[in-house]
Amino acid sequence: VTDVQVVGLTGIPEITARSDLAAEIVQALRRQALQPDAADVLVVAQKVVSKAEGRSVDLRTVSPGAEALELAAAVAKDPRLVQVILSESRRVIRRAPGTLIVETRHGFICANAGVDHSNVDAPHHVLRLPLDPDASARRLREALRLALDVAPAVVISDSHGRAWRLGSVGVAIGAAGLEPLLDLRGRADRHGRPLVVSTAGRVDEIAAAAGLVMGEAAEGIPCALVRGVEWTPASPGAGAVGIQRPEERNLFR
Amino acid sequence: VTDVQVVGLTGIPEITARSDLAAEIVQALRRQALQPDAADVLVVAQKVVSKAEGRSVDLRTVSPGAEALELAAAVAKDPRLVQVILSESRRVIRRAPGTLIVETRHGFICANAGVDHSNVDAPHHVLRLPLDPDASARRLREALRLALDVAPAVVISDSHGRAWRLGSVGVAIGAAGLEPLLDLRGRADRHGRPLVVSTAGRVDEIAAAAGLVMGEAAEGIPCALVRGVEWTPASPGAGAVGIQRPEERNLFR
Repeated sequence: VTDVQVVGLTGIPEITARSDLAAEIVQALRRQALQPDAADVLVVAQKVVSKAEGRSVDLRTVSPGAEALELAAAVAKDPRLVQVILSESRRVIRRAPGTLIVETRHGFICANAGVDHSNVDAPHHVLRLPLDPDASARRLREALRLALDVAPAVVISDSHGRAWRLGSVGVAIGAAGLEPLLDLRGRADRHGRPLVVSTAGRVDEIAAAAGLVMGEAAEGIPCALVRGVEWTPASPGAGAVGIQRPEERNLFR
Repeated sequence: VTDVQVVGLTGIPEITARSDLAAEIVQALRRQALQPDAADVLVVAQKVVSKAEGRSVDLRTVSPGAEALELAAAVAKDPRLVQVILSESRRVIRRAPGTLIVETRHGFICANAGVDHSNVDAPHHVLRLPLDPDASARRLREALRLALDVAPAVVISDSHGRAWRLGSVGVAIGAAGLEPLLDLRGRADRHGRPLVVSTAGRVDEIAAAAGLVMGEAAEGIPCALVRGVEWTPASPGAGAVGIQRPEERNLFR
């Protein structure tokens, strides 16, 4: 593999809970005369998946509990927002004024449990991550298969901060059709010695590459078709949630 | 920006301390009829940069000190290798059998200070990271400017494990010509509200995308030309080392 292409899909309208996201993606592909094949990966921003799944919450309907009130004071955030974040979380990893890092119910370590109020049309609404992003990716893939007669792999991406690096980078929070890791074990280096780096975080590399075209701003491009990447078909049950490091293998914490 | 291309450079021979890395890259570009322009980014694997800079060490010449001997026993590694790792490090972040996570002298948090014995031709040799990878990137960029009359931006990439995710992903350890972060502050979402994710880790997104074509294995492609990406010209002193989170801003530790 020597040539990878990342093509942003343009002209996708505002997505709401009444949208047919797969149909909008298919229309965008057709407008750009793109015919995905089974080797392609379609990357879809978490925001449009969450919107299509009706994952927005009206903060005016949220009553913060005692833990949310205490934590909101500590981090200087809206107690109703903190309540939504806590409802999406297993535990709080780190709190500081303006910052709340949690482990989400899926197992992702990220700021605010991925709850976001940019790109939501109603001012009092915030958007939660999909309940099961791997299942969301599988459903999208099946809808694309029906519409296109071929199923590209699907990755649902979000932008996460990193522990030791400034700047956000795309990561996969959901995946269907492809194995999230690319196993390089058994491959030899130029000198016949086994590789030290033996597992590539392939879905995350794909999500990061898609981030190069998927702007967060007004011109927002919520999807990208990634072509020419080497990946392995998914084994049963494989998904992006499964590549969170199990606690006992977390060597950085 | 809706279309990004990542083109792997093929046929680059084994690089040694006697190689002219820039000349080999220029030849590979010409063989593939690629004419970089000033908007392109050339990503170069750390390994070939380190080799060209003579950063290999013969372990038979290394005498491990007391700290290396003690640590080597704790992590079950060669004490001479541990001595090389310690010499490259400011401090040890985490130790476990088979694993040694350190902060390098540059400030990178990574396994084994990036010291690696795959893809080194001599069996007793290990390869250290460049002394100053941002300076390496600047030198390469100047050499390319001389040879090509135009200077693409240059990123030196390595594969790092992540704190909470399995699988390695490309990150930038050196950069020249481009600002490492893409500042999205001031940009509005579709609804005119400021973006929550306000800074993209652009060099790391580029390094991760290049990782999709730059295999670590025998077919090794040590460089990739990345085209069509939005980035900002570097401000004075900008580089990949500077986007390590300062200790006081590290919200995950």
